[in-house]
Amino acid sequence: MEQALFKKLEEYYDEMVRIRRHLHQNPELSFEETETAAYIADFYKQLGVDVKTNVGGNGVVARIKGGNPGKTVALRADFDALPIQEETGLPFSSKVPGVMHACGHDGHTASLLIIGKVLNELREELSGEYVLIHQHAEEFAPGGAISMIKDGCLDGVDAIFGTHLWAEIPHGTISYRTGPFMAAADRFEILIKGRGGHGAMPHKTKDAVAIGSQLVMNLQQIVSRRVNPVESAVVSVGSFIAENAFNVIADTAKLQGTVRTFSEEVRDLIEQEIEAVVKGTCLANGDCGYEYNYYRGYPAVVNHKQETEFLAKLAVDVPGVTNVEELEQQMGGEDFAYYLQHVKGTFFFTGAQPDDTESPYPHHHPKFDINEKSMLLGAKTLTLAAVEYQKQELPKDESIAIP
Amino acid sequence: MEQALFKKLEEYYDEMVRIRRHLHQNPELSFEETETAAYIADFYKQLGVDVKTNVGGNGVVARIKGGNPGKTVALRADFDALPIQEETGLPFSSKVPGVMHACGHDGHTASLLIIGKVLNELREELSGEYVLIHQHAEEFAPGGAISMIKDGCLDGVDAIFGTHLWAEIPHGTISYRTGPFMAAADRFEILIKGRGGHGAMPHKTKDAVAIGSQLVMNLQQIVSRRVNPVESAVVSVGSFIAENAFNVIADTAKLQGTVRTFSEEVRDLIEQEIEAVVKGTCLANGDCGYEYNYYRGYPAVVNHKQETEFLAKLAVDVPGVTNVEELEQQMGGEDFAYYLQHVKGTFFFTGAQPDDTESPYPHHHPKFDINEKSMLLGAKTLTLAAVEYQKQELPKDESIAIP
Amino acid sequence: MEQALFKKLEEYYDEMVRIRRHLHQNPELSFEETETAAYIADFYKQLGVDVKTNVGGNGVVARIKGGNPGKTVALRADFDALPIQEETGLPFSSKVPGVMHACGHDGHTASLLIIGKVLNELREELSGEYVLIHQHAEEFAPGGAISMIKDGCLDGVDAIFGTHLWAEIPHGTISYRTGPFMAAADRFEILIKGRGGHGAMPHKTKDAVAIGSQLVMNLQQIVSRRVNPVESAVVSVGSFIAENAFNVIADTAKLQGTVRTFSEEVRDLIEQEIEAVVKGTCLANGDCGYEYNYYRGYPAVVNHKQETEFLAKLAVDVPGVTNVEELEQQMGGEDFAYYLQHVKGTFFFTGAQPDDTESPYPHHHPKFDINEKSMLLGAKTLTLAAVEYQKQELPKDESIAIP
Amino acid sequence: MEQALFKKLEEYYDEMVRIRRHLHQNPELSFEETETAAYIADFYKQLGVDVKTNVGGNGVVARIKGGNPGKTVALRADFDALPIQEETGLPFSSKVPGVMHACGHDGHTASLLIIGKVLNELREELSGEYVLIHQHAEEFAPGGAISMIKDGCLDGVDAIFGTHLWAEIPHGTISYRTGPFMAAADRFEILIKGRGGHGAMPHKTKDAVAIGSQLVMNLQQIVSRRVNPVESAVVSVGSFIAENAFNVIADTAKLQGTVRTFSEEVRDLIEQEIEAVVKGTCLANGDCGYEYNYYRGYPAVVNHKQETEFLAKLAVDVPGVTNVEELEQQMGGEDFAYYLQHVKGTFFFTGAQPDDTESPYPHHHPKFDINEKSMLLGAKTLTLAAVEYQKQELPKDESIAIP
Repeated sequence: MEQALFKKLEEYYDEMVRIRRHLHQNPELSFEETETAAYIADFYKQLGVDVKTNVGGNGVVARIKGGNPGKTVALRADFDALPIQEETGLPFSSKVPGVMHACGHDGHTASLLIIGKVLNELREELSGEYVLIHQHAEEFAPGGAISMIKDGCLDGVDAIFGTHLWAEIPHGTISYRTGPFMAAADRFEILIKGRGGHGAMPHKTKDAVAIGSQLVMNLQQIVSRRVNPVESAVVSVGSFIAENAFNVIADTAKLQGTVRTFSEEVRDLIEQEIEAVVKGTCLANGDCGYEYNYYRGYPAVVNHKQETEFLAKLAVDVPGVTNVEELEQQMGGEDFAYYLQHVKGTFFFTGAQPDDTESPYPHHHPKFDINEKSMLLGAKTLTLAAVEYQKQELPKDESIAIP
Repeated sequence: MEQALFKKLEEYYDEMVRIRRHLHQNPELSFEETETAAYIADFYKQLGVDVKTNVGGNGVVARIKGGNPGKTVALRADFDALPIQEETGLPFSSKVPGVMHACGHDGHTASLLIIGKVLNELREELSGEYVLIHQHAEEFAPGGAISMIKDGCLDGVDAIFGTHLWAEIPHGTISYRTGPFMAAADRFEILIKGRGGHGAMPHKTKDAVAIGSQLVMNLQQIVSRRVNPVESAVVSVGSFIAENAFNVIADTAKLQGTVRTFSEEVRDLIEQEIEAVVKGTCLANGDCGYEYNYYRGYPAVVNHKQETEFLAKLAVDVPGVTNVEELEQQMGGEDFAYYLQHVKGTFFFTGAQPDDTESPYPHHHPKFDINEKSMLLGAKTLTLAAVEYQKQELPKDESIAIP
Repeated sequence: MEQALFKKLEEYYDEMVRIRRHLHQNPELSFEETETAAYIADFYKQLGVDVKTNVGGNGVVARIKGGNPGKTVALRADFDALPIQEETGLPFSSKVPGVMHACGHDGHTASLLIIGKVLNELREELSGEYVLIHQHAEEFAPGGAISMIKDGCLDGVDAIFGTHLWAEIPHGTISYRTGPFMAAADRFEILIKGRGGHGAMPHKTKDAVAIGSQLVMNLQQIVSRRVNPVESAVVSVGSFIAENAFNVIADTAKLQGTVRTFSEEVRDLIEQEIEAVVKGTCLANGDCGYEYNYYRGYPAVVNHKQETEFLAKLAVDVPGVTNVEELEQQMGGEDFAYYLQHVKGTFFFTGAQPDDTESPYPHHHPKFDINEKSMLLGAKTLTLAAVEYQKQELPKDESIAIP
Repeated sequence: MEQALFKKLEEYYDEMVRIRRHLHQNPELSFEETETAAYIADFYKQLGVDVKTNVGGNGVVARIKGGNPGKTVALRADFDALPIQEETGLPFSSKVPGVMHACGHDGHTASLLIIGKVLNELREELSGEYVLIHQHAEEFAPGGAISMIKDGCLDGVDAIFGTHLWAEIPHGTISYRTGPFMAAADRFEILIKGRGGHGAMPHKTKDAVAIGSQLVMNLQQIVSRRVNPVESAVVSVGSFIAENAFNVIADTAKLQGTVRTFSEEVRDLIEQEIEAVVKGTCLANGDCGYEYNYYRGYPAVVNHKQETEFLAKLAVDVPGVTNVEELEQQMGGEDFAYYLQHVKGTFFFTGAQPDDTESPYPHHHPKFDINEKSMLLGAKTLTLAAVEYQKQELPKDESIAIP
C-alpha cells in the first residue's frame, strides 16, 4: 500500500510544482486569502472530493473516507503569504507588489492538495478517514487555527500531523521533537508614568529614564532567578523610548518586549512576575504610576510523545529521507499549537534547503526560497503517517511506553 | 553723589520703561540681534558717548570717563531674546512671531542704557571709568561673552557687576551669593553600539536596551559615590532612545543628558567618570562598542567674595530695597561666568515678581513677565556699586578678610 | 536466564538487607573508606571472585567472566558516607558519631555485592564479562571516579550502567533521561578589592559593597541574556560578605557562588562571562582590583541515547517495576559523569521512597532513609541491563536511530 | 580689658598644659567620667567658683558673674575619652589600658578650666555672666549635651561658643562656617528576609543576595535623584552580610549603613525614601519580608550667622592667630548641635596640628596628638568672644544683616 501511495505522489510531483508556482505568483495576505481558498476548493471539487469552505474564515476542509473503517487523521497546511516585496528573481515570482510567499506556505498547500488527490484515488483500499485542513492566516495573530477549530475542523479527528518546509535544514532531513517544540510568543508593553522636569532638578521629578532602567535590570531576574532553570524562557525588552531634550528629565518611558515560553505554567508565572517587578519598582520610585499590558500570542507547540515517536520511526522508511533527527526547541511560534491542544499529533520540520547553497536565505527574507523536491518528501511522510496511524495502538499506561 | 544718581535714575524711569517696551516688541534671537545692537549704539551716539559696535559679534560697548581718576568698573546687560511665541496679552507684546523677550533681557538693556545716560550726565563729578557692556547671545552657547572678552571689552577693567531680573523673587529683594552661584551646564551623548537580533535569541545579541539600562543605573553612582558630598552636582539622563519592534533586540541605544557642577574639578571628574562607567559597562557586556561625547556649556558663575559682600552690604542702602538676602546655589547657567574668570566682580538677582501675583510665570514661559519697577532698583544697585567701588580697598591678606 | 537471575536475587534479598544495615552502622567519610573497602574485597574473596583493591584510592573492582564470549559491561556503586549526625532512630543507626549513610550509598553497595554473587554463581551460562566497580568518594570533589578510571577500572569495558536509589521517587518507579541528565556543579569566588574609608566620604573610596551589588545585578544577565535560552543554566551568588561598622565604607567584598550547566560549551561560556562582567564592573568603578577563581566540580552526567533507551525499554519487564518514566533534568551532580565520558552507558534513578510516607526526608537529611525493597528492584534492573546488553547491536548510522 | 585677659591666659599656660597632661594620663570612657568630673569640680571649688556637679549625668557647670550687668554667655568643653589603646609614646601617655584621649577633649577641658580661672580673677571688671559647661560623653550617642540641657545648663544663657582643637588644621588658624557646619550622622539597618534554598534552585527561593544587591543599587538614587542637589547628603551601605555555603541561596541579608545630612528636611526625606526603596524592592522580589530600623544620631551643627560672623571678625584680632578662614562643611558629627538648637552661638575649629609634622595623625588614631600651644589660642578666642559678645547688638531685621 505504501508503495502505491509513494508511486502516485511521485507521478504527481510535476503537478505539485505547478500548483506551488501558481500560488507563489498569486500570494495573499493573512485573513485576505479568498482567491487562494477558492483555488483550493476548486481543486477538490474537480476531484469530486467533499469540501467545505469558509471554515472559521477563509479556511477550507476536505474529507476523504477510506473503504474500510478506521481512525480519523487530519493533515494541515497553511496558505497565507507575507507583506514582503519579493527579490528572488524567480521566473514565477509574486505578481502582487509587496506580498510574497516567503515562508513556504505555497509548498505546504501544493503538497497537501496532491496528498488529497492521491488519497482520494486510493480511497477504496484505505482504512479510516482523512481530513485535509487548509488553514488561512498562520502568520498573523490570532491566526486561523483557533477559528477553524471552533468551526468544527477537528470534529471526530483522532490525530493530526503537520510539517513546515524549513529552508535552513538540508533536503533529505526530517526533524522532530517530543513535547514542547515551538515557543509561545507573547508581547508586553510597560508605560512608566513618572513626573518630568528640568534636568538640573531631579528632586522635583520622578525620573522615568532612571525608573525604566531600574526596571529593565530588575526584569532580568525573572529568567535568572524565578523560572525553573530546566525550563526555557526569554524576557526581552526590545524597545525603550523616552525621547526628550538633553536637559529635561523624562516624564514617561515606554517599554515593549517579548516573552517566550514552552509551558503555560511558566507563561503565567512570567506574566505575573513582570507586573510584580513593575509594581515594586514603581513603588520604590516615589510610587510612580504605570500601565502594563500583556498580549498573548500563540501558545507553545507541544508535540505528543507517542505520535512524535511514531512519526520519527516511520520517517526513516520514507524513500528519499536520508536523515531523521531530533531538533532542539525552537523559539519561533506556530498556531498549529491549537490543534495539539485538542487532539493528539505532532508537528515536524521537513528540510527544504535549496540545492545550490549552504547558507540559504532565512524564512521571511525577500530572497527566501525552498527546495521544491522537499515538498515530495514532506508529502510522502505525511501520507505515510496518516495511513500507518490506522495500525497504531494506544498503550493502556502511557507512563511505561517505550520512550 | 549717590542721591544725585538715584534722583536722575528715577527721573528717567519712564524712558527706561519706554525703551524696555520697545525692545520687548522687537525681540531678536541670539546671534541675530543686529537691530537691537544698532538701537543701543544709536542711544549712546545721541548722548555723545563713546561707543564701539560689533564687539565680538553683535556686542556693543560704551565707555564713560569720570572727571577724576579711579578704577575702571564694568556693568553688563544682555539683549538677546528666545524662540518662544509670546502669550502674555500685553499691549506691547512681541511683534515677531515665535520670538519673545521671555527672560527679562529687555529690562536689563533698558536699565543699563539709562544707567549710561545718568553716569554720562554726572561724569564730571565721578571718579574712574565706566564700561557699559551690552552683550548679545546669552541664551545660546557658546554665548556672546567669550567673544566680547576676546575682542577687548574687559581691557583695563578692575571689576564687573551684573544682575538678572528674577521674576520668582519678590520686588524689593536683592539676592546674592558668594562663590559658586550658578551652575556649569554641560551636555553629553552616549551611543551604545550593541548587536541587534531576534527578541527570542538574546544570546546572539548584545542587547543595547539592557546595556543602556545598566549604564543609567551605574551612572547614579557618580553623584552618590564619587563626588565629594559637600559639592553640588547633577548627572541626569534625559533621553533614552532605542525604538524597535517588540520582538527585536535593540542594536543601539542613544542616551543624552546634562551635567551640572559648580567647580571645574568636579566638572572634570564627572566628564571622566562618565566615560569610565560607559567603558566598563560596555566591557562587561560583550565588550560592545560605544560613542561618548561631552559638550561643555558655560562654566559656573563664581562670584568673588569681596565684591559680593561689598554689593550685599551696599544694597541695604538702596532706596526701595527692602530685603537683601543670600540665595542658595542655582542650577541654571549664565555666561556672565566668563567675565568673572577674568576680573573681580559679582552677579546678583534683582527680585522682579509682578505685583499682581504670588505665583509668577517662570522664565522662558510664553506668559513670562517682569515687574518693571524692578528695573529701577536694579539700575540703582548697579550704579551705586559702580560708583562706590571707587572707594574700595583690597585687603592684603584675603584669608583674614571679614567673612 | 533472566528468570534465574531474578530468582537468585530474590533469594539473597535478606543478605542484601543485612549487608546494607552493616554498612549503615559503619559509615566512613569520603576518601577515608578503608574498612568499607576491605569489607567489599573480603566479600568477593570469599566467593572466589577476582578482585582488585586500592583502585585509584580506596576503590575496589571485581571482574566476573561469563562462560561464553561477549561484551564487557560495568556496573558501578559508590560507598562513601556523609559528615551528618544521624537522627533516624533506626535500630541499625550509624555507630560513628557525625557520620551517616544519608544518601543511599549503603544500599548501592549492598545491591552490587549481591549482583556480583549472583552473576558469579551463574557465570557459566553467561556471555561476556562483568566489571563490578565499587567506587569510593562520590560525595566530595574531585571524587573517586576520575582516579579509578585512570587506574584502569574501565579497561576493556564496552558499556556502563549505574543507578541511584532516590527517596523522593516512589518505590516501583525507574526514572531515566537521555542526554544531559545531571548538572555540572561548579564553584566561583570573587573578591572585590575596593578602597575602604569613612562612610561619610564615599568620594575617597571605592565602595566594595556598591561595586559588589552592581556585580550581582550584572551577573543576572549571563543567564537572562547570554546563554542560549534552550540551554539550562544557573548562576547563583550564595554568599556576599562585607562586614564592617555601619559608618565605614567597605574595603573588600567577598562573593561566592555556584554555576550549574549541562553542556561544556555553556560551562566554558559562563566561566568566561563571569570574568568579563567582573572585569567590566571593576573598570567602571574606579578600575578597582579583583580576584576571580572558578573551580570546576564534576561535569554533567550525559547519558548515551541508545543505552538509555535500551535501559528504559528493558526496565518495563523487570518484575516489581510498575512505572518507567522520563525524568526532567536534575541540578544535582554525580561523578558517574566521568565514566560516561569514556564509555557508553546510562545512569538512572531507582525510586526508593519509604513505604510509610508520602513526604520522604530528602537526601543528606539527618532523618533520610530508603525503602530497602528498592535495592532489589535496582539490582534486578542493573543485572538485566548487563546481561541483555550482550544482545545489543549498534546501528551503523546513529542519526537515524529510533528516538 | 582684652589685653589683661590675654596676659593672664598666657601666664597660666603652663598650668593649662599640666592639667591637659594629667587628664591625658587619666582618660575615662563616655558616661563613665566620674574621676574627671570630680577633678573639674575640685578645680572650681578651690577657686571658690560656684559649681554644680552631676548635671544631666557627669556634667559639671560653673557660673561666674561679672561685676556689671550684661548678657549670659556659655562656653563649652567636653571631657570624655575613647576606647583606643594609645600608641603615641608620649611621656604622659594614658595610664588606662585601652582608653585614650584621642580626640583632644583633654585639651578642651584644660583650656576651659584656665578660662574659668581667668574670668574669675577679673570678674569684677567684667559685664554679664559666664557659664562654663564641662560636658561628659560627646563621643557616644545619645551624648551628654541633651541631658545637660534638660538639666538646666542653658538656663538664662544668651549665646554659646565652643571650639574643637583640630589636628588636621595648622596651628594659628581659626576655621569657621555659618549655617550647617557639621553633619547629622544617623545609622540604619535593613534585614532582607528572603527564602533560602539550594543554589541550583533559584526559582524555589527569594534570593536575599540578589535582592540586597538590587537594594544597594536602588539606594544610590536617593542621593542622585531625590535630594535637592544643592543640599549635601550621603547614604552609605557599609556592611552587607549574607554568609552562606557557595551552593546555598541566601535566606537573609543584613545591611547596615550611615546617613549624613545638614538639614532636618533632608534627614526626614532620606529616612522615608530608604523605606520606600526597601519596600518597593521587596515587593518587586516575591513580596519578601524586611526589617528596617533608622537610628538618629546627633543632629547637624548649624551655626548662627551673626555669632559666626562675630567670631570670625573677632578672631582676626587674637594674638597668635595668623589665619581666619571659612571651612567647608564637615561630614562628622558633634552634639554641640543641641546647644545651638536652644540658644544662639557658633562652634569653630582651632587649628592644632603638631609643630613637627605636615601629615598629622587623624582624630581617633592611636598616635593622635595635638599642638598644646593651640589650647592657648582656643582659650583666647573663646574668652574674647565671651567678653566681646557683651557689646553685641542684635539687628532688628536679620535678613538685611551684613552677610
